[in-house]
Amino acid sequence: MTLDAVLTRIDRTMPETMDRLFGLLRIPSISTDPAFNADCARAADWIAADLRAMGFEAEARATPGHPMVVAHAGPMGGRHVLFYGHYDVQPVDPLSLWHREPFDPAIEDTAKGPVIRGRGSSDDKGQLMTFIEACRAWIAEKGALPFRVTIFLEGEEESGSPSLIPFMRDNADELRADIALICDTGMIAPGVPSITGQLRGMLKDEFTLYGPRIDLHSGHYGGPGLNPLREISKIIASFHDEDGRVAVEGFYEGVDPVSPQTLAEWQRTGFDEKDYLTSVGYTVPHGEKGFSTLEQQWARPTLEINGLWGGYQGAGGKTVIPAEAHCKLTCRLVGRMDPEKLRKKIRAHVEARLPVDARVSWDRDSEGSPAVVMATGRPEFEAARAALTDEWGRSAVIVGAGGSIPIAGFFKSVLGMDALLMGFANDDDAIHSPNEKYDVKSFHKGIRSWARMIDKLAG
Amino acid sequence: MTLDAVLTRIDRTMPETMDRLFGLLRIPSISTDPAFNADCARAADWIAADLRAMGFEAEARATPGHPMVVAHAGPMGGRHVLFYGHYDVQPVDPLSLWHREPFDPAIEDTAKGPVIRGRGSSDDKGQLMTFIEACRAWIAEKGALPFRVTIFLEGEEESGSPSLIPFMRDNADELRADIALICDTGMIAPGVPSITGQLRGMLKDEFTLYGPRIDLHSGHYGGPGLNPLREISKIIASFHDEDGRVAVEGFYEGVDPVSPQTLAEWQRTGFDEKDYLTSVGYTVPHGEKGFSTLEQQWARPTLEINGLWGGYQGAGGKTVIPAEAHCKLTCRLVGRMDPEKLRKKIRAHVEARLPVDARVSWDRDSEGSPAVVMATGRPEFEAARAALTDEWGRSAVIVGAGGSIPIAGFFKSVLGMDALLMGFANDDDAIHSPNEKYDVKSFHKGIRSWARMIDKLAG
Repeated sequence: MTLDAVLTRIDRTMPETMDRLFGLLRIPSISTDPAFNADCARAADWIAADLRAMGFEAEARATPGHPMVVAHAGPMGGRHVLFYGHYDVQPVDPLSLWHREPFDPAIEDTAKGPVIRGRGSSDDKGQLMTFIEACRAWIAEKGALPFRVTIFLEGEEESGSPSLIPFMRDNADELRADIALICDTGMIAPGVPSITGQLRGMLKDEFTLYGPRIDLHSGHYGGPGLNPLREISKIIASFHDEDGRVAVEGFYEGVDPVSPQTLAEWQRTGFDEKDYLTSVGYTVPHGEKGFSTLEQQWARPTLEINGLWGGYQGAGGKTVIPAEAHCKLTCRLVGRMDPEKLRKKIRAHVEARLPVDARVSWDRDSEGSPAVVMATGRPEFEAARAALTDEWGRSAVIVGAGGSIPIAGFFKSVLGMDALLMGFANDDDAIHSPNEKYDVKSFHKGIRSWARMIDKLAG
Repeated sequence: MTLDAVLTRIDRTMPETMDRLFGLLRIPSISTDPAFNADCARAADWIAADLRAMGFEAEARATPGHPMVVAHAGPMGGRHVLFYGHYDVQPVDPLSLWHREPFDPAIEDTAKGPVIRGRGSSDDKGQLMTFIEACRAWIAEKGALPFRVTIFLEGEEESGSPSLIPFMRDNADELRADIALICDTGMIAPGVPSITGQLRGMLKDEFTLYGPRIDLHSGHYGGPGLNPLREISKIIASFHDEDGRVAVEGFYEGVDPVSPQTLAEWQRTGFDEKDYLTSVGYTVPHGEKGFSTLEQQWARPTLEINGLWGGYQGAGGKTVIPAEAHCKLTCRLVGRMDPEKLRKKIRAHVEARLPVDARVSWDRDSEGSPAVVMATGRPEFEAARAALTDEWGRSAVIVGAGGSIPIAGFFKSVLGMDALLMGFANDDDAIHSPNEKYDVKSFHKGIRSWARMIDKLAG
């Protein structure tokens, strides 16, 4: 029977499969830093060439930003699924905290089993390759895929996806399929196959607070001088109240309570709260009082400071009152929160707190993305549940997610397509952090899971 | 009459005098950054050689840090004055705000007259050279100085002077004189000769606040995750109350009110509050409510943040909750405030506000310096008043100062010497800032002022 042959081939060819992944991981495709533009292009070309070698019509297509990889294979006329992933990765700083070079991947043995170490191993190169390798094995055994498959990979997911919506609009007819399959999410607990039922949205913003016209001597002006570092700290401190609730007026507009049924389902997913907290050095959850850790992570919005700086950072000291202070922030959105309305509320909150002689400028204006709730009633979700349950030997669960995958919402808003997210990352993968890893087990069984999914959808 | 000849020579030789200053300004002697250690040594050697050429016994003496320049000239047995200055300078960042290379000095014409542009032109190379050039002219005309002069220059004034006290102790007999003359201060208003009657003390400290064990994804941990950038902002915001008063418990212990007489004197010094504020972009004083700008600057202690940083500062965004946040701070002390007691109070204030799962480490522990009040009744002060009044054509005033010159206190505590501070800097010299300058008039009349001072002390 075909599926068994495909699964056997997947197992047998793991060494070559791993070599291919390493080849992709060695390309430092950091999308947010222009210094790595050429590497992003190289990663796109690498994948397009690999897909062509499998028989896909594939190309890396130029955009105003980083290229999109678009590839097609399989018979027209019947079912048509689109697979989405992203080949770009996060910056690696602080580099000093990595115990090996981020773009020199290797398999390391750990107490929890072997892992693939390297930037992008989990987010998202390792995950996107699970689908590509499943297709490769299927084609190798059967000669062709059982239905139409379009692969669509972007290189700007970690930098606000500026080219994504225009590209989807310009290529709507080519990209529109029955459903979008997305592999950029994790498992609620090790070995518990998970389908993501909802995602938080995201809003990014950045501001500079200006005080004196020039940097000042903290002796000559210490006292009468307004200090931007003190003022920006007061503003950041004002973003939350004593209970950890965001104090920006109207922030929670559009936030709905989670139904008791959903809460009960979540508690049954096997989420290990203790491990989730202690694995990163926490003993308690630090979010809004009155909400469980899962609610804080999946169902409540946030306002986080991602970068804060001003004044002297070098060796020794400098007795200065700096002219500027800088802050990068992101919000995670839930329910019906409107990103652009929220941006206005946050900017108003900051501007209302500027003292005399201070001013603010807003630097970043990437489009925000609302939260997304999936159409879990679709047949593809039943197929996914079955495929995952077969492969992992325990029933798949539908979970929430704290992260944002704007594309899931864009498929709906731009192309009218629903999306299905299943992924194999673990909470301790340290994505966006030093020493990112992906479990060899996730990679291997992830490929097998997609092979089973193709089989279910073919049936 | 000798003085006239000396003053005439000073005027006549200004071109060569300026060339010598430029030679010293070209040496990037930034003491706080180890990358410039060799340049600090070069600056010390440059001055020692120049002093030897004038007939001083002079040498640059090694210390565990940067060298000290010690030089002697003039007859023993009678009056003995020590002159102190520092040849090290502040870092130049942000370099992008300089309109010329900081260590490529030049004379520039401005609306307020010609200025010497360059790092160190005012603080303190230009100022220390006013005394050296006065000695040069005097020796050239008269063959020798009229009394014993010891010149003592350090290279660590901008980096906490770690070697100063040990060096003073080890060389106490050689350095001890009747009084220390210090040229590292400014004029209360352009053209108003000023003697500094009191100085604020200083305390430096630096801490890192740690949260999660690693940088975290702000989607996966946004909500439950403790964010060090938010926590450090709350702590910094807690340092001051709504009235701009420092809220650290016991902070004001040892702070005395200023006498109405002193306040009245200060108001008569010609301090131009409007220019002091507007020249740097302020419309109002931002210090403690209920105190005048002069009191905020001279008579009230401060707690200033000089550096603050954590998270992502690069191009674009990064959805991270960082593992660490950093803060550099300095306090200015007045009256009887004890630096080391204050350090404990500040550290206790921070530690009392750490949330669960956060910890702090203290990085910097340079010795603090208390405030200093000068012995303005000494005869040398009368001589200085007369010399300055003669040169500037208006009576010299005794002023306070916002800055700290720890050496003034150390001369008393280590060597039992009083100090006299007279300097020629202006508030708009942008010391410690980009585009530092020193008025040509300050340099020229500064040299003439010291020549007159030598004459008064000789008489």
